Amino acid sequence: MPETHLLAPGLTAEDVQFVSPALARSTKEVVMDRLWNRPELSRRDRGLITVAALIGRSQTLAMPHYFEKALDSGVKVSELSEIILHLAFYSGFPNAMAAVGAARDVFHKRGINANELPPAHDKLLQLNEEAETQRATQVANNFGAVSPGLVQNTTDLLFRDLWLRPALTPRDRSVVTIAALIASGQVQQITYHLNRALDNGLSQEQASEIPTHLAFYVGWPNCFSALPVIKDVFEKRKEY
Amino acid sequence: MPETHLLAPGLTAEDVQFVSPALARSTKEVVMDRLWNRPELSRRDRGLITVAALIGRSQTLAMPHYFEKALDSGVKVSELSEIILHLAFYSGFPNAMAAVGAARDVFHKRGINANELPPAHDKLLQLNEEAETQRATQVANNFGAVSPGLVQNTTDLLFRDLWLRPALTPRDRSVVTIAALIASGQVQQITYHLNRALDNGLSQEQASEIPTHLAFYVGWPNCFSALPVIKDVFEKRKEY
Amino acid sequence: MPETHLLAPGLTAEDVQFVSPALARSTKEVVMDRLWNRPELSRRDRGLITVAALIGRSQTLAMPHYFEKALDSGVKVSELSEIILHLAFYSGFPNAMAAVGAARDVFHKRGINANELPPAHDKLLQLNEEAETQRATQVANNFGAVSPGLVQNTTDLLFRDLWLRPALTPRDRSVVTIAALIASGQVQQITYHLNRALDNGLSQEQASEIPTHLAFYVGWPNCFSALPVIKDVFEKRKEY
Repeated sequence: MPETHLLAPGLTAEDVQFVSPALARSTKEVVMDRLWNRPELSRRDRGLITVAALIGRSQTLAMPHYFEKALDSGVKVSELSEIILHLAFYSGFPNAMAAVGAARDVFHKRGINANELPPAHDKLLQLNEEAETQRATQVANNFGAVSPGLVQNTTDLLFRDLWLRPALTPRDRSVVTIAALIASGQVQQITYHLNRALDNGLSQEQASEIPTHLAFYVGWPNCFSALPVIKDVFEKRKEY
Repeated sequence: MPETHLLAPGLTAEDVQFVSPALARSTKEVVMDRLWNRPELSRRDRGLITVAALIGRSQTLAMPHYFEKALDSGVKVSELSEIILHLAFYSGFPNAMAAVGAARDVFHKRGINANELPPAHDKLLQLNEEAETQRATQVANNFGAVSPGLVQNTTDLLFRDLWLRPALTPRDRSVVTIAALIASGQVQQITYHLNRALDNGLSQEQASEIPTHLAFYVGWPNCFSALPVIKDVFEKRKEY
Repeated sequence: MPETHLLAPGLTAEDVQFVSPALARSTKEVVMDRLWNRPELSRRDRGLITVAALIGRSQTLAMPHYFEKALDSGVKVSELSEIILHLAFYSGFPNAMAAVGAARDVFHKRGINANELPPAHDKLLQLNEEAETQRATQVANNFGAVSPGLVQNTTDLLFRDLWLRPALTPRDRSVVTIAALIASGQVQQITYHLNRALDNGLSQEQASEIPTHLAFYVGWPNCFSALPVIKDVFEKRKEY
């Protein structure tokens, strides 16, 4: 079981086998062999959402193993760098900083050079002005008087900057965002981001598989609490 | 204060006394001397729910002290092993893996042998087919189309396998599950699991004491947010 | 960038720059230079809420840097000690213990003496009996039968002891409490504590800036989920 060997620093497959033989078996047979090979989501997508869930929950022990696994599954180094930046805003800068430590070691091990990473200032993707104006207007109407600073930063830093950086496709940004929301129990924010994800090219079948996968990484309850919201989004979209 | 000596690796009772004398006093007088001796829950039950709360929140620093305390309070080694497996599914595999590291050290210190731990495949308890079919049907009707993989795994891995493993009684599994739900703010999932716990032999008085105890381990707000749901369960059951 | 040098043990500014140049830039330009200097909240208040958010989320890696920053921004050592005590109750004793380790090192580095810290038993501020009786009656009516132990402890340990300790003003206790609630997604408990904060001298403009600041430390979603509750409190208070 070389895979569990790397599950966390100082934790070997023998430790898991010793403390709970059933946990060792489930990890190998159910998660690694079966879950990661289900066709409903690519292994690359599973890498994206697992990494996002770990960063969103500051699971530093598991990061080295899964950062490697994500890179081995088709996530690019530049994309992993950009996921950490993205989640600085969606999970908090301290979560991102905790991920930097793990990513640094993995990047060094693979001999990554600084020029392979997305620059501080990048050429931005073209903005859909109409959709963004509509989003900004609605949020300003709702919350402009409640927290003007947050509302302004959302426009300036997120939707007119972060989301337009080309190092991660809008579809992948949506996937990572949804994973972080489910991972941290933020069901209220799923409606907007799941609709955005489906608009950005995520299929409904892929979206359905995200909680199936994440249940093993963030626990069944976080995923079950997301289901009514996901169901509601799917049903409302059918009406159009 | 030998107990606070072990509160976390590298953290002595003198450190707590130095940084906050009031915190040292509350830990000793309010939590260790008074809370753990309240008769509404046995010390063994307090061990179960404290350990579950720490695993549910990945509080690795406090695990060694409380794993020892749980074992000293009547929780069996095989039960602690099984709690870690149970919470792999209810809190996430990374949480379980973080607990494995702490459990390994405690088990080694006590000279535990591998044959004292529950096997990977165990003879299962008898299933209540009627109740399980009813549960599965209801979940499938609600969410079968939203996330078919998660719904199927819930049946196959949780209710027709994990919950039937004999290393932990159904009542204790329910107690551990409820503690993890309160610890992580998952109030939506409490209704089903509290009813299941009361069906499985938890008394209402014991259920009432769970938030009293957990408030010290997961914070007052998580427990207060659980109270309306617990109240609702108690009241609905009176109607029958 | 000496500031990011201290962001976490073992993590240098060069590491952040290497893994994500954009994260290094945002940390310096957006968070340190701009956010911390916005006039809507003092740097001292930003120190209070950042420290509370980190303790509430057990972000131990970032604690040393921000404990220092809070002290450099006008938070007193005795206040930091008392915040840790306060959050033992509002975020859990394990979170407080994790903070003790970081605080001990910072206090030692600054040559703090034990007599500068709030004593275990302190002379209490005068209680507003009428307001407290009203609060206690309402909570007892709602939840006295659901969890009598928790309801009694809330009165005895929190509102007739902790909140009356003079080491932290009631206004600052409210600020710290609200920050911890937003940081851990406990929106249900914000209504009571925001009203209390506004009664205790927090201005509405300051309250509005708390989510603006915290978004960078606990992620946008936690703050956006708090906005409807904050809005509701603001609107209800206008009606009187």
